[in-house]
Amino acid sequence: MDIASIIGLVGCFFVVIFGIISGNLGVAALPNFVDPASVIITFGGTFVCVMASYNMKDFIAGIKSIRLVFKVPVVDESTTIRNIIDLSNVARKEGLLSLEEAANNLEDEFLKKGILLIVDGTDPELVRAILETELTCIESRHKKTISFWETVGAMGPAWGMIGTLIGLINMLKVLDDSSSIGPNMATALVTTFYGSLLANWISAPIASKLKSNNDVEIMLKEVIIEGLLSIQAGENPRVIEEKLKSFLSPVQRSAFSQGNGEDELVTNGGGESNG
Amino acid sequence: MDIASIIGLVGCFFVVIFGIISGNLGVAALPNFVDPASVIITFGGTFVCVMASYNMKDFIAGIKSIRLVFKVPVVDESTTIRNIIDLSNVARKEGLLSLEEAANNLEDEFLKKGILLIVDGTDPELVRAILETELTCIESRHKKTISFWETVGAMGPAWGMIGTLIGLINMLKVLDDSSSIGPNMATALVTTFYGSLLANWISAPIASKLKSNNDVEIMLKEVIIEGLLSIQAGENPRVIEEKLKSFLSPVQRSAFSQGNGEDELVTNGGGESNG
Amino acid sequence: MDIASIIGLVGCFFVVIFGIISGNLGVAALPNFVDPASVIITFGGTFVCVMASYNMKDFIAGIKSIRLVFKVPVVDESTTIRNIIDLSNVARKEGLLSLEEAANNLEDEFLKKGILLIVDGTDPELVRAILETELTCIESRHKKTISFWETVGAMGPAWGMIGTLIGLINMLKVLDDSSSIGPNMATALVTTFYGSLLANWISAPIASKLKSNNDVEIMLKEVIIEGLLSIQAGENPRVIEEKLKSFLSPVQRSAFSQGNGEDELVTNGGGESNG
Amino acid sequence: MDIASIIGLVGCFFVVIFGIISGNLGVAALPNFVDPASVIITFGGTFVCVMASYNMKDFIAGIKSIRLVFKVPVVDESTTIRNIIDLSNVARKEGLLSLEEAANNLEDEFLKKGILLIVDGTDPELVRAILETELTCIESRHKKTISFWETVGAMGPAWGMIGTLIGLINMLKVLDDSSSIGPNMATALVTTFYGSLLANWISAPIASKLKSNNDVEIMLKEVIIEGLLSIQAGENPRVIEEKLKSFLSPVQRSAFSQGNGEDELVTNGGGESNG
Amino acid sequence: MDIASIIGLVGCFFVVIFGIISGNLGVAALPNFVDPASVIITFGGTFVCVMASYNMKDFIAGIKSIRLVFKVPVVDESTTIRNIIDLSNVARKEGLLSLEEAANNLEDEFLKKGILLIVDGTDPELVRAILETELTCIESRHKKTISFWETVGAMGPAWGMIGTLIGLINMLKVLDDSSSIGPNMATALVTTFYGSLLANWISAPIASKLKSNNDVEIMLKEVIIEGLLSIQAGENPRVIEEKLKSFLSPVQRSAFSQGNGEDELVTNGGGESNG
Repeated sequence: MDIASIIGLVGCFFVVIFGIISGNLGVAALPNFVDPASVIITFGGTFVCVMASYNMKDFIAGIKSIRLVFKVPVVDESTTIRNIIDLSNVARKEGLLSLEEAANNLEDEFLKKGILLIVDGTDPELVRAILETELTCIESRHKKTISFWETVGAMGPAWGMIGTLIGLINMLKVLDDSSSIGPNMATALVTTFYGSLLANWISAPIASKLKSNNDVEIMLKEVIIEGLLSIQAGENPRVIEEKLKSFLSPVQRSAFSQGNGEDELVTNGGGESNG
Repeated sequence: MDIASIIGLVGCFFVVIFGIISGNLGVAALPNFVDPASVIITFGGTFVCVMASYNMKDFIAGIKSIRLVFKVPVVDESTTIRNIIDLSNVARKEGLLSLEEAANNLEDEFLKKGILLIVDGTDPELVRAILETELTCIESRHKKTISFWETVGAMGPAWGMIGTLIGLINMLKVLDDSSSIGPNMATALVTTFYGSLLANWISAPIASKLKSNNDVEIMLKEVIIEGLLSIQAGENPRVIEEKLKSFLSPVQRSAFSQGNGEDELVTNGGGESNG
Repeated sequence: MDIASIIGLVGCFFVVIFGIISGNLGVAALPNFVDPASVIITFGGTFVCVMASYNMKDFIAGIKSIRLVFKVPVVDESTTIRNIIDLSNVARKEGLLSLEEAANNLEDEFLKKGILLIVDGTDPELVRAILETELTCIESRHKKTISFWETVGAMGPAWGMIGTLIGLINMLKVLDDSSSIGPNMATALVTTFYGSLLANWISAPIASKLKSNNDVEIMLKEVIIEGLLSIQAGENPRVIEEKLKSFLSPVQRSAFSQGNGEDELVTNGGGESNG
Repeated sequence: MDIASIIGLVGCFFVVIFGIISGNLGVAALPNFVDPASVIITFGGTFVCVMASYNMKDFIAGIKSIRLVFKVPVVDESTTIRNIIDLSNVARKEGLLSLEEAANNLEDEFLKKGILLIVDGTDPELVRAILETELTCIESRHKKTISFWETVGAMGPAWGMIGTLIGLINMLKVLDDSSSIGPNMATALVTTFYGSLLANWISAPIASKLKSNNDVEIMLKEVIIEGLLSIQAGENPRVIEEKLKSFLSPVQRSAFSQGNGEDELVTNGGGESNG
Repeated sequence: MDIASIIGLVGCFFVVIFGIISGNLGVAALPNFVDPASVIITFGGTFVCVMASYNMKDFIAGIKSIRLVFKVPVVDESTTIRNIIDLSNVARKEGLLSLEEAANNLEDEFLKKGILLIVDGTDPELVRAILETELTCIESRHKKTISFWETVGAMGPAWGMIGTLIGLINMLKVLDDSSSIGPNMATALVTTFYGSLLANWISAPIASKLKSNNDVEIMLKEVIIEGLLSIQAGENPRVIEEKLKSFLSPVQRSAFSQGNGEDELVTNGGGESNG
């Protein structure tokens, strides 16, 4: 479970509740902000409209993607780089075919697939083409999900405003009782309030989080492609390490170097580069 | 018929009706939201203005594109990939010329055209150039239609606001009867309401759906181009399958592999890649 | 004369007039919407400000471009492709030098220039470089004109708002007579109304139409460049036709094939491709 | 001095003054629009905030760039192309080394630098690399200045709104005297008015003008690079002319051809291309 | 410490204070603008929502990046270019291996790493690949931080508006005492005021400054990559100088040439280019 998302989404809820009860009315104000009809107009209108913007399969996939927000990506760059360097050592000592066995212990499906392509003796150009096509398609699927939540974030305030316009027109048509103007206007504004929450509390953080997760995953896969092609080209493990470490931030890099202590000893013999 | 679009567009209508009758006035409020003059200003102004933005042919094509929203694309990636693999098997066993007969059974015009170019013995570079030019031109025609609905979506609220400004100026000039302010203002707001519906109920879902359909079609055609060139290059059907499967999502891929059971047997003999 | 632009721009005018007289005041409301001072603030401010954004030459060119909106492009893709195929037949039968005479009958200056470069024996790479530089420069000149109208469309509402702010500040400073608030506010809103019309009635359709015309022209010139280089390379007229037809939509393509009946007979003899 | 900028910026001033005095109050309204505190909030806030967005050197450079708006670029494309053709004639007749003397008469520093690189016998690839790096860096410096004014244009209305919010909150807290509401609100709106002027009168035209000047300069430098490399490659002056004329608009081109009458005679002898 | 950022951020504070006390109420108005509940809604809502948009590590890194705004980049282009030219002289006279010692005196980690790669005899293509991957990754990390502050800048006004909506709905529901409307509305507007300050006083300048610092750093690193590859290729120091000077503005360039007086003497002997 991703702690920032949980704190964030729950925290937003409490900030809104606090905002409502910190006014003159105190807790008594809460019922003013709960209006089932407004929920139907704003949330109903938004999701029904978003459904019309996609086909049913993509709509359901979009809704389901909400749980990805709470998932912490399990593999990180350092582990992946270490795996690739280990694999390159195996390949150097025991040949490319010995990678098949090593691949079975890997959790990363993308890395495993690449290894199997190499073991099959696939042409390097084809390995790159297959993996990069997959990368592009993964990213375009992610972008579809991100755009789903961006559409929700655009539709929310729009339907909030439609609800407010309906309320205002209804109210203005019968201005007989001036004392009812205030409460009616308050009710009209509730849909705008809902639309604003839908956009800023739900859609924006989800879209932003999915974008962020996508960046991490794509970068990881680029590291893998670069590493796999280096292994296939029979490059020196130390050169591969140097190459892949360029993807790390200074902090990750020093952490990586410490954790990598014993590997360093193994590969030091082949210190000269043959890139 | 695409079920999501129908539910979505009809659902929006009911949400709006519900929003109107859920107020204090109930069903009696409905006539307040029907104003023929406002329809003419908002919808008339929008479409006449969009007409000025395009030439007559593109305008009519834009209007007509509305029915594409309800059409479900008939061919999917898996079927297309299976067709290409079948064709590559035919080509391997009976030569490129035998593809002509097989092409006659294909529904996809783009794939058929590509096969005929190959059968004609066209140079691979030229096959790619012709098919990619066609791809680019298809996409640019799609984008024109999408931009048509985006223009409608931008013009709708603009003419809604022009209508509201006209109503406000008319109302403010003669403020003799203060009891008429409310109803007049309500009428002025109806054009804003119409403009908002035009943008969010009609234009946004249509533009979004056409964009989504375009993405699917372009991706499908990229799969076809990639496949055709592999067939022409005489690549092994299993390599072609591996290549084209990169375009599929994990879900589609496992569905594809199951459905492909018997093909697997046929092509397994040529398991080593010659990419 | 382009009929869509005329209907569109005139139609917008009538929609606005209808909107004004459909209120309670009827035709008597029209004078409320004509205010010379507001015209000067909104239109004067906009154009003077746009002038400051460009140099005098570009400003005058921008204003003049308004007449391009009503011009229907005379040459279409089908005619151009037919011309190029005719030229390729001439070149095949009588040699490249014989194109000089044929070029004299062409209306399209760009095509003529390309033919003359070929006749002069210019290197293919240089022909492509010269024609593509010209294409890029044409497009960048078009984009300057389009951005001129986009600037007008951004400045219009801005100066409309400046006018309204001036009117509001003037009005609020002397709130002695409450009966004058309404009419004064109405006057203040007239500049916003003008700014909205300037943006949505004039600028948006012009910019959109010029963009659309630019797309058509650029595509046509890309067809010409592709065709000219094929002629210079001595490609088979049927291959050239196949290549250039990729630029056409399915509708244009079938229309083209029908109109091309007799040419087909002539070129059928050289049916095999030599691309 | 660039006449369009002067007319434009002065004209905007008069349009605003006219807008103010065309109201009911006449010239007496002018003092309502001059409020030193509002000037400090809007202009002070904007520039202090823009300063925080840049470092001191860039801030001062940004402010200074205002005078570039009134400068008319002295060299035009036609003159530059003629200079390059003259240089290519010199190079053809007297060798590349003779260009050194000719370069001393050139005003354009960029052209002069390129000539000296050629005279030094620099490798063509390196000449292109050096000149294109310089081009990229010039453009990125220009873009920094343009973004400076775009930041001013974004900050102006923001601080105008902050000023108005401060005024409104101050006013609403003490609503004891209802007769003071109007004037106080007018004062609050003055900062919005200032912010709008800052964005639309000052920033937008300056940013737009600098962008336009940048486009002209970059295009000119691209012409120079293309020309210099052609001279170094020893291309025929007539081919160079044909190449560089592609950068000109039809109007410039016919003007160029007329002004170029006597050069044509000189170079006609080498009419065949050797590109 | 960067003086522009300090003047800017502190100056904004004083402009706001001045704006508040320059009204009719004077210093007594200040308490109206301090409302702890509004602080919690606007700032709390914003940061909790931004936290949900990132993971915890990126959120903390984003908050910490605020101190980068006050740091003046220590190394400038001129110093870096001079260092590279010095290194190229060392490499020419004493061989590439002698660079190792010289590298120890360098402060720039990126330059040092590049030198060590060269000394290790790494293949030039690999040196470029490693350094450019690092450049890309540095830029993508910077962009993440910039987008963090842009998210803050978007969320600030959104939560300000949510706070104002809550305040308005609360107020409108109980309109019993008309004398309380003003003060209640003032309080409701305070969150909008806070949101506006958060966006324009804090986020915009920070994001802009980080973007500006990123541009400088990336350009510097491009200079270094270009220089290192030239050193490795054994290019003449004068050619390297000419190449790298293209990155400088005219002002920097003349300052560089003056400061470089004595180096000029040393390298003049190798005046002919061997690029």
